[in-house]
Amino acid sequence: MQTTTSVQYSFTLRLEIPNKPGMLGKVTTLIGKQGGNIQAIDIVEVTQDNMVRDITILTRNVDHSKDIVEHIKKLRSVKIKHVSDRVFLMHLGGKIHIQNKVPVNTRNALSMAYTPGVARVCDAIAEDPAKVWTLTIKSNSVAVVTDGSAVLGLGNIGPKAAMPVMEGKAMLFKEFANVDAYPICLDTQDVEQIIQTVKNIAPGFGGINLEDISAPRCVEIEQRLRDELDIPVFHDDQHGTATVVTAAMINSLKLVNKKFSDIKMVISGAGAAGYACTRMLQNMGMKNIIVCDRAGSIYQGRTQHMNPLKDWFAQNTNPEKLKGSIAKVMEGSDVFLGVSGPGIIRPVDLKKMGKDPIVFALANPTPEIMPEKAEKYVRVMATGRSDYPNQINNVLAFPGIFRGALDVRATDINDEMALAAAKAIAGIITDNELSEEYIIPSVFNRQVAKAVADVVAETARQTGVARKK
Amino acid sequence: MQTTTSVQYSFTLRLEIPNKPGMLGKVTTLIGKQGGNIQAIDIVEVTQDNMVRDITILTRNVDHSKDIVEHIKKLRSVKIKHVSDRVFLMHLGGKIHIQNKVPVNTRNALSMAYTPGVARVCDAIAEDPAKVWTLTIKSNSVAVVTDGSAVLGLGNIGPKAAMPVMEGKAMLFKEFANVDAYPICLDTQDVEQIIQTVKNIAPGFGGINLEDISAPRCVEIEQRLRDELDIPVFHDDQHGTATVVTAAMINSLKLVNKKFSDIKMVISGAGAAGYACTRMLQNMGMKNIIVCDRAGSIYQGRTQHMNPLKDWFAQNTNPEKLKGSIAKVMEGSDVFLGVSGPGIIRPVDLKKMGKDPIVFALANPTPEIMPEKAEKYVRVMATGRSDYPNQINNVLAFPGIFRGALDVRATDINDEMALAAAKAIAGIITDNELSEEYIIPSVFNRQVAKAVADVVAETARQTGVARKK
Repeated sequence: MQTTTSVQYSFTLRLEIPNKPGMLGKVTTLIGKQGGNIQAIDIVEVTQDNMVRDITILTRNVDHSKDIVEHIKKLRSVKIKHVSDRVFLMHLGGKIHIQNKVPVNTRNALSMAYTPGVARVCDAIAEDPAKVWTLTIKSNSVAVVTDGSAVLGLGNIGPKAAMPVMEGKAMLFKEFANVDAYPICLDTQDVEQIIQTVKNIAPGFGGINLEDISAPRCVEIEQRLRDELDIPVFHDDQHGTATVVTAAMINSLKLVNKKFSDIKMVISGAGAAGYACTRMLQNMGMKNIIVCDRAGSIYQGRTQHMNPLKDWFAQNTNPEKLKGSIAKVMEGSDVFLGVSGPGIIRPVDLKKMGKDPIVFALANPTPEIMPEKAEKYVRVMATGRSDYPNQINNVLAFPGIFRGALDVRATDINDEMALAAAKAIAGIITDNELSEEYIIPSVFNRQVAKAVADVVAETARQTGVARKK
Repeated sequence: MQTTTSVQYSFTLRLEIPNKPGMLGKVTTLIGKQGGNIQAIDIVEVTQDNMVRDITILTRNVDHSKDIVEHIKKLRSVKIKHVSDRVFLMHLGGKIHIQNKVPVNTRNALSMAYTPGVARVCDAIAEDPAKVWTLTIKSNSVAVVTDGSAVLGLGNIGPKAAMPVMEGKAMLFKEFANVDAYPICLDTQDVEQIIQTVKNIAPGFGGINLEDISAPRCVEIEQRLRDELDIPVFHDDQHGTATVVTAAMINSLKLVNKKFSDIKMVISGAGAAGYACTRMLQNMGMKNIIVCDRAGSIYQGRTQHMNPLKDWFAQNTNPEKLKGSIAKVMEGSDVFLGVSGPGIIRPVDLKKMGKDPIVFALANPTPEIMPEKAEKYVRVMATGRSDYPNQINNVLAFPGIFRGALDVRATDINDEMALAAAKAIAGIITDNELSEEYIIPSVFNRQVAKAVADVVAETARQTGVARKK
């Protein structure tokens, strides 16, 4: 529930207002009274009798926007010429496009970029396929692939409705790491079809970013593709999240002066993100992780509401075989990590945690517990949101990780590379800077992608997955 | 066989030459003597004793380039620092990239282009899937799809080696019609796999351009995809070629004052291009077309060297059931169309044609007969090459055809639309301008794509395949 106005609910009203003193004031006062946040007023046209103005207003949500419009409609002398939603305006025609690196507007350019000159380049690759890395876009291209089955918090909305997210992802790849990413939204949700399709389109790409594919299918799809392709396949919802969570955890534990090996952590959410976070934090030395789903803790021997992913959790987590509700197993814990849904835990649950509780409540847009409710009981709090401190955002990880992998033409993004990325992200914040409200760098910190790329490339070399030395 | 120097075989020599009068002259004289065509001389660096210069040279072919380098190596006082091939230089890192339409370098932009704002756009499309056309890149995006089985004249060189051609194609889409095309090179040559993969990736695209897929598979693949997808699927090697051939034919027949219905035409090449040209020229009213392959004419009842495509030719062409070699069936014909291989016909074959012979010898890079050998015997001659008059080049057709189809969100590119495109291309040349050496507009005539797009969009509307009115 949005309580403050936000640019994601901003709209522009084009109004025709009588050209008389005080008229604009009437309008702006009305908007202010209704809680609208005026961001800009621009004059479009002035006539003898009227002024046409664009008023850009931030609101709390769609209903709030409609409400403001309804109130202005009642002003008799003001005419609404147009209402335009800024988010939708930005999406008109899509958000990315293709550009030629050189123009093909002369015969010479055409003869070199296309027939007949291009034939020599094709021949060179046919003779030595490794040259595809130098002579085509492959070395900088990533396919952002989804089947639309688990898009943001929206669920199974299908490939077409998923497009705006994949385009947005492609934008972030470009903006933060100069990677050319292209959205591929699949018209199938069949595991074998997805695997086969991605394998079929792989030759022109240097990497595959899987996105918003529902669990547990996503785990199998990623594993199979990693095994069967010679380019990195990275499921961002798993490893991007795990990387940033681990980075934030490194800094949080530093702050409270605890060791990974001593921590008791409870995870809410037995999906792909929970799985990847568990594995990565275990790689960091964490031993006592208890994962919960709606039915409570997962333990060896549980028989109800299981699936292959939960079987893995039962075998590989919860060494003390704790049974019970999330509230119960949280007692005495050091860390809570939420990768599930809104409002799963209560302040009373936090009260029963150990000393210096660390809470990462990452459900989006509404966290497992709101920071306002938690703040009294926790030492460190992080969410997935930009309007609170400590935003856990994958954009800190995936652009730099792919940049590093592409730079050395890696065959894989392995655990070591992701872990190196996590440490690099954590390392951006110096010991002097580190505080309860600054455990993770800002998404706009331009040092991050570069630092991540460097260590990822270096780790690829060290672990033998770099094609380019 | 290239006899003149060309930019497709140009290279840049970086030479360290003693800083003394006459030294540069020695080098340039040597290059000139060896037949190299110096295009530019640039100074890179000057020291006390030496000058470093970049000399860009056009040559006849790769061996010619090597030969020049060998000769320069023998000049004792000159040091070769670097030899760089300009075509390969142009291809380094590929020829296209992705660009964001708006930067995502502020929190506001991020909140609108990605989470959380993007969720509202996703919701809107989930609610009304038709909105994918307005709110994503779909409406301007085309996949350029190949399996690498019949690339240019190079044959089955596979998906990786095909990439430079597909990137080049994407460049032409952008340059000539502002269409965003993306290369998809498939790691399968199985018909069912190709069909399924293209169907699976279709949601994000507004059209599919099939390219360089071998016959007769390409015909089935295109037909199946046209039937099963709700976006246009266009096999350029078929319909692009047929459209430009038909345009050139319209103007050629105007010039010799003959009617389509009266023409006897011989086609060399029973592949996909021959098939599409036959169908389109029949749609223009041509009745007497005889198609030949290596075994001679194809006729009803022929049993040797047949395939499904040739069965179609046997049923639908050659009404007089002429049997025999290409030379024999060409006797008394009005038009020869070559979409096959180099040197298939001889001057003596042309001599036996009817009055005012029209010869389109489109095999690339070496035509069915070279213009120098044909000129004595023909009235109108066209090739696929840029170094002779009347170049039949698909770039006259596909950018405008897709532009028009996308503009009205067409569900198909049907025969009527392609025919309208052919007429529009022909119509660019006025009666006053029309001559034996100007039957088809230049590929750089910027009127063409616009004229084609307009009639294609209008014809889509008239034939009921336009989604947008």
